[in-house]
Amino acid sequence: MSLERFDGVLAPVVTPFDENLAPDAERFTGLCHWLLGQGVKLAVFGTTSEANSLSLREKIGLLEQLLDSGVEPDSIMPGAGLCSLSETVEFTAAAAGLGCPRVLMLPPFYYKNVSDDGLFGYMMEVIERVGHEDLQIYLYHFPAMSRTPFSLDLIDRLVKEFPGAIAGIKDSSGRWEETAAFNAAGWPDFRVFCGSERFLLQNMEAGGAGCISATANVNPAAIAALCSGWRAADAAERQRELTGIRDLFESAPMVAAVKAAIAICSGDAAWSRPRPPLMPLSREQYESLRAGLAASGFEMPGIGQIFQ
Amino acid sequence: MSLERFDGVLAPVVTPFDENLAPDAERFTGLCHWLLGQGVKLAVFGTTSEANSLSLREKIGLLEQLLDSGVEPDSIMPGAGLCSLSETVEFTAAAAGLGCPRVLMLPPFYYKNVSDDGLFGYMMEVIERVGHEDLQIYLYHFPAMSRTPFSLDLIDRLVKEFPGAIAGIKDSSGRWEETAAFNAAGWPDFRVFCGSERFLLQNMEAGGAGCISATANVNPAAIAALCSGWRAADAAERQRELTGIRDLFESAPMVAAVKAAIAICSGDAAWSRPRPPLMPLSREQYESLRAGLAASGFEMPGIGQIFQ
Repeated sequence: MSLERFDGVLAPVVTPFDENLAPDAERFTGLCHWLLGQGVKLAVFGTTSEANSLSLREKIGLLEQLLDSGVEPDSIMPGAGLCSLSETVEFTAAAAGLGCPRVLMLPPFYYKNVSDDGLFGYMMEVIERVGHEDLQIYLYHFPAMSRTPFSLDLIDRLVKEFPGAIAGIKDSSGRWEETAAFNAAGWPDFRVFCGSERFLLQNMEAGGAGCISATANVNPAAIAALCSGWRAADAAERQRELTGIRDLFESAPMVAAVKAAIAICSGDAAWSRPRPPLMPLSREQYESLRAGLAASGFEMPGIGQIFQ
Repeated sequence: MSLERFDGVLAPVVTPFDENLAPDAERFTGLCHWLLGQGVKLAVFGTTSEANSLSLREKIGLLEQLLDSGVEPDSIMPGAGLCSLSETVEFTAAAAGLGCPRVLMLPPFYYKNVSDDGLFGYMMEVIERVGHEDLQIYLYHFPAMSRTPFSLDLIDRLVKEFPGAIAGIKDSSGRWEETAAFNAAGWPDFRVFCGSERFLLQNMEAGGAGCISATANVNPAAIAALCSGWRAADAAERQRELTGIRDLFESAPMVAAVKAAIAICSGDAAWSRPRPPLMPLSREQYESLRAGLAASGFEMPGIGQIFQ
């Protein structure tokens, strides 16, 4: 029997860096364990993780250390869409070999205006070369960043050709119309994750699987509660609360804001350090975020005990 | 005494792939030797090389085999701008260690709307971590592909902070106004290469250093002749001839068109194979290119002897 498909809420775990800008495996695994305790799973090596600021070997090293720390591989959806065909195959095969064959995959993102035939050929090569029976690819649709969308036509071709391997999509388009269209397509057992909890209730009502959102790093329990309890009478009110917190983070560069919030809530300033070319929040952005979080009574329960 | 800065014409050498889509080192070195014989130097691992479809190890392997084949390292400007800080440092240090410390560098191209401060920090980390006294970085300005331009302000800061390491720019904006501005900036010993021979005469008249152009793979001798002979009376006529050939290639996807032309001129069909997500020319595009080349009397002298 093959692995179940993912559903629920996953956090694209932010990657901490030490003072030499090397990945900090201890803080990384600490945050991962906290997130699991809050009821979400781990989409490590996403955009919020600064995955494309990490080398292939740094990613494999972090994944190994995460597994060594006792995290079950079933809780992990590694981001596996690297720049080149050869590296994407190498990383995906390595992740699958470590027990994580369910991966989130960017398209090859350097080239622009690539044809659907070219993307189909690329995905076919990845699937065939990885050659793992439990491979599940969740397509990472993020047109504003990758500049290479997954079209409905392309997904339809992929699902029909590879019904086992093409398992779902994370829609980071920021446009509900696109998420709705992915849900409405009717592909069997195809899991649609919205890329922001702003759309979580709508996505669940439309038959979606859940949410993979940057702010699930900092507000995991509340997002997970709405995802599992979306049929409850107070769901719309909970959605408004989630959206209010999300708004605070969207008023600054997202990766730096999520890292700053962890630093604020844990008291561990090392968290605020991104790897260039990303920058930490400016003093003004930092103070504005801190004030907004305080005014809303925001906290990350127990995070201070882990990092102090 | 440190290395001289590059000038003249460089070809972003196309990368041949075998039937298993692995890099074909024999054909690669064969083309490189032919190009050197035609009077151009080798900007291996550029966009036309499908560099971002290659892994770090594939690139180092090809560079080693190229050097083993007897090519002087002084003739090579490797493309060294990888996706992440750690890989860019690793590859650049490896290339410098192999005798090629003069590199063409894309900005970190996954992230969009990155600040100049962030890009400055990134370049500073690269330069300091590579830590090679002969390091020369030629900035690869290609906004349509990287979506991350090098602004005049940023270059000015970089040149002033790192006058040894920041050596020049390849301008693939396709806009003469930008190339003109880079030339007019007056940075000492800063080498401006146009990214298409369409602008070669203008660039030389403006004080530029030369040209790094996809079509230098197929039309190297004529481009090199105008670059060195731009003061001659017939320069404008030669520019028109170069532009006419360039037009033939711009009527199809460039990488596939350059590969197809090598296949056509050498009789070696294996050359037409790109790595996904890029696609070979369609039959119609291929025949149109072939007819255009034949009508203009285009040839690549001696290429058939190398690959048959």
